[in-house]
Amino acid sequence: MSKEITSRAVDYSQWYNDLVLKAGLADYSAVRGCMVIKPYGYALWENMRDVLDKMFKDTGHVNAYFPIFIPKSLFEAEEKNAEGFAKECAVVTHYRLKADPNNKGKLIVDPEAKLEEELVVRPTSEAIIWNTYKTWIQSYRDLPILVNQWANVVRWEMRTRLFLRTAEFLWQEGHTAHATKEEAVEETTRMLDIYAEFAENYMAMPVMKGVKTANERFAGAEDTYCIEALMQDGKALQAGTSHFLGQNFAKAFDVTYVNKENKPEYVWATSWGVSTRLIGALVMAHSDDDGLVLPPKLAPIQVVIVPIYKGEESKTLIDDKATTIVTNLKQKGIRVKYDNADNARPGWKFAEYEMKGVPLRIAIGARDIENNVVELARRDTKEKTTVSLDGLEEGIQQLLEEIQLAIFNKANQYRAEHITEVNSWDEFTKTLDEKGGFVSAHWDGTSETEEQIKTQTKATIRCIPLHNKQEAGVCVMSGNPSKERVLFARAY
Amino acid sequence: MSKEITSRAVDYSQWYNDLVLKAGLADYSAVRGCMVIKPYGYALWENMRDVLDKMFKDTGHVNAYFPIFIPKSLFEAEEKNAEGFAKECAVVTHYRLKADPNNKGKLIVDPEAKLEEELVVRPTSEAIIWNTYKTWIQSYRDLPILVNQWANVVRWEMRTRLFLRTAEFLWQEGHTAHATKEEAVEETTRMLDIYAEFAENYMAMPVMKGVKTANERFAGAEDTYCIEALMQDGKALQAGTSHFLGQNFAKAFDVTYVNKENKPEYVWATSWGVSTRLIGALVMAHSDDDGLVLPPKLAPIQVVIVPIYKGEESKTLIDDKATTIVTNLKQKGIRVKYDNADNARPGWKFAEYEMKGVPLRIAIGARDIENNVVELARRDTKEKTTVSLDGLEEGIQQLLEEIQLAIFNKANQYRAEHITEVNSWDEFTKTLDEKGGFVSAHWDGTSETEEQIKTQTKATIRCIPLHNKQEAGVCVMSGNPSKERVLFARAY
Repeated sequence: MSKEITSRAVDYSQWYNDLVLKAGLADYSAVRGCMVIKPYGYALWENMRDVLDKMFKDTGHVNAYFPIFIPKSLFEAEEKNAEGFAKECAVVTHYRLKADPNNKGKLIVDPEAKLEEELVVRPTSEAIIWNTYKTWIQSYRDLPILVNQWANVVRWEMRTRLFLRTAEFLWQEGHTAHATKEEAVEETTRMLDIYAEFAENYMAMPVMKGVKTANERFAGAEDTYCIEALMQDGKALQAGTSHFLGQNFAKAFDVTYVNKENKPEYVWATSWGVSTRLIGALVMAHSDDDGLVLPPKLAPIQVVIVPIYKGEESKTLIDDKATTIVTNLKQKGIRVKYDNADNARPGWKFAEYEMKGVPLRIAIGARDIENNVVELARRDTKEKTTVSLDGLEEGIQQLLEEIQLAIFNKANQYRAEHITEVNSWDEFTKTLDEKGGFVSAHWDGTSETEEQIKTQTKATIRCIPLHNKQEAGVCVMSGNPSKERVLFARAY
Repeated sequence: MSKEITSRAVDYSQWYNDLVLKAGLADYSAVRGCMVIKPYGYALWENMRDVLDKMFKDTGHVNAYFPIFIPKSLFEAEEKNAEGFAKECAVVTHYRLKADPNNKGKLIVDPEAKLEEELVVRPTSEAIIWNTYKTWIQSYRDLPILVNQWANVVRWEMRTRLFLRTAEFLWQEGHTAHATKEEAVEETTRMLDIYAEFAENYMAMPVMKGVKTANERFAGAEDTYCIEALMQDGKALQAGTSHFLGQNFAKAFDVTYVNKENKPEYVWATSWGVSTRLIGALVMAHSDDDGLVLPPKLAPIQVVIVPIYKGEESKTLIDDKATTIVTNLKQKGIRVKYDNADNARPGWKFAEYEMKGVPLRIAIGARDIENNVVELARRDTKEKTTVSLDGLEEGIQQLLEEIQLAIFNKANQYRAEHITEVNSWDEFTKTLDEKGGFVSAHWDGTSETEEQIKTQTKATIRCIPLHNKQEAGVCVMSGNPSKERVLFARAY
């Protein structure tokens, strides 16, 4: 095989990088910490975006677009939010370059084109959006506002990883405004449910729904809800967040509405987002040492047909049959590719489409056609079967659904085996080191203990699960009383 | 009517601004020269984007995403391109803010977080993309590369207008790489044809296809092809450009491929783009003093149903009937809205949807239902007709097609009346001042004459039409010999 990748057992982290590069998902760029999303990776993102966008619209949301720049004075208005993001902001200070008088053909920043006020490249858009909502909202009749934005954002991260943590990334950010606290909380959990549904039903990736501790909360939020997934190396990954922002941004930007009793009140807010990070999660949740394993619902190519021919005559015969299959599959809405390029051998193509995670491969030769059969190969299980050409398309449709489910079930079983209840510090550290996964343990509820645990083990509280069972216990670290277990893990 | 806008006859420019704001397409923002694209405007952009995206994909293109930042050293590599955009670049110089020691709660740029190399916020992406293509292209087998990107770009314009000229705008930029000059030129004109087809068949806006003069060429291009539209005030608007870039970027970034004869050659390039500017063009091409006039193929809402009821009983009756119509129209793929909100009178709603340019309005009252009819009102002609409920949906589908065509025909007739052949300087200036539109005149082919005409009249050469008739004549300005007419106009 021409494109080999490091195996997971040898070096999980290297396996991930190799895979992202060799499957053609992304590339490093000339800009520190920024990636190039290659066509295959972008096609995956388009499929994710289209599904999410429909889910948002079906729940009454509309899209809009706000400026990428935030004037510094607006950025600093909500103090906690500003403090949380100030350390990683790209800042525009000038609006012109000019010829370098000392270096022909080179440019320098024109010192005369300094901005009066610096502009922050958005790390998140609450500030610019709430400054705008101020002019949109006067009365209760203007509420709710249910807006989403698909955009790029920039956070100057020091240690970056393709998709998982990049200085620039693509995301969607919902920003809603409500008349009451109840409505805002309801919206927050509605969007969390949508994220969980998307993760499980489309990404085939089981997630825990929960609430973050104060330490892990979004800067400026009253409550951060999250979905947490588990990767194959036993580390957790935050896959989406939905924030109840209370009236923090309404107060910072003075956004009030006149209620039905004709009295002014501050507006309640939520924000919620998922990003291209999900592509990293998808890769790490399912893939293997031969390449990507993609759930059919999101795979850019669901079925690939590879002809096995000797000589022109059999090629024409196979081309004809394959073209018919392609037409039939497309009619069923299946994304299919017929690869009859003659610059690569079938074996090379097989490896290539395994690397790219195409869920189903059809190999078709002249003798197969004589026998009225083709060979089907599943990417997830590597199973090969010979099936009749009669009813092939219906069979494929059904098989794609089975594969989707099988990938979910496998990940779900892995997760079930990697949620471990522990009751002592010894068990806690041992489980983290030897088994990984989520560790369900009692915690005394203080930020101090949380910090101590993080310092000693690198494990963080991923979430307090929703509808968490209340049970008396003692904190694994401090021995102080606790009323519920929370989920710890080392995380991306 | 609650929302009045300035009439075109009084102040065309003010009419445009009023309309964009009051129809809810866009809003000014807190950032100089940047706009907020409001949900209704963004829905229009989504429709345009979806149609274009499909046209690109149908012609073999794929989407990808490249970093928003371009390191200064890459930006300056293609000298003409750099020179063309240097004067309007937003420049990132720092990557961190910190607390202002002298001003509690305020932030300042952290002087210790100065970038070693400044980053330019992309005004266009040739530099970062060709620097990446260098690693993607080795052999003729890697070509062609047919990539498109949907993205935001920033050009620090001094005088901005909503949609037409903003510091940040949304666009698509295609960047293709080819083995031969012929292929690259073919791609350039193929994309020009796609833009023209989109403008005419979807935006209902006739365009002239042509080539720019050297003066008006894209910085770094060998040839810039364009489509030029005509607005209702007689001014032209460049609606899309497609550039043949020759080997300029390949040479600047040292991008070569090994050809079939095993020899290295520089790669040939094209780039092409349209932007949210098209929304401005769409508004100005068709709308009137009552609001937007949108072509059905792009209208976010194609049909609105407004109930006319007195009392609850008739409301229920109308709701039932309207719901059936909505279901039937949706089944035909028609974007329909039933507005039975009870906080506004029918008259107010009529005006509102006229402002928003909804192509077709259905008014339905209890007596109408008794008579088995509804009232249909066309936005473009203001015609009202009473039609039977039987076969309503088929009738509407057909009527939407008629409206699409009627809007195009009206714009096309206006344009036909506003292309004027002139043969003297006197005629030239008189036509520009009194009639406007495209002025077809002989020009001696020199940049000097072109500049002189621009200085004296503010008219520029919009394009040298494709397949232009060759005829001997004398330049209207210099009196020197000319071999063809070109199209002049004052332009946005």
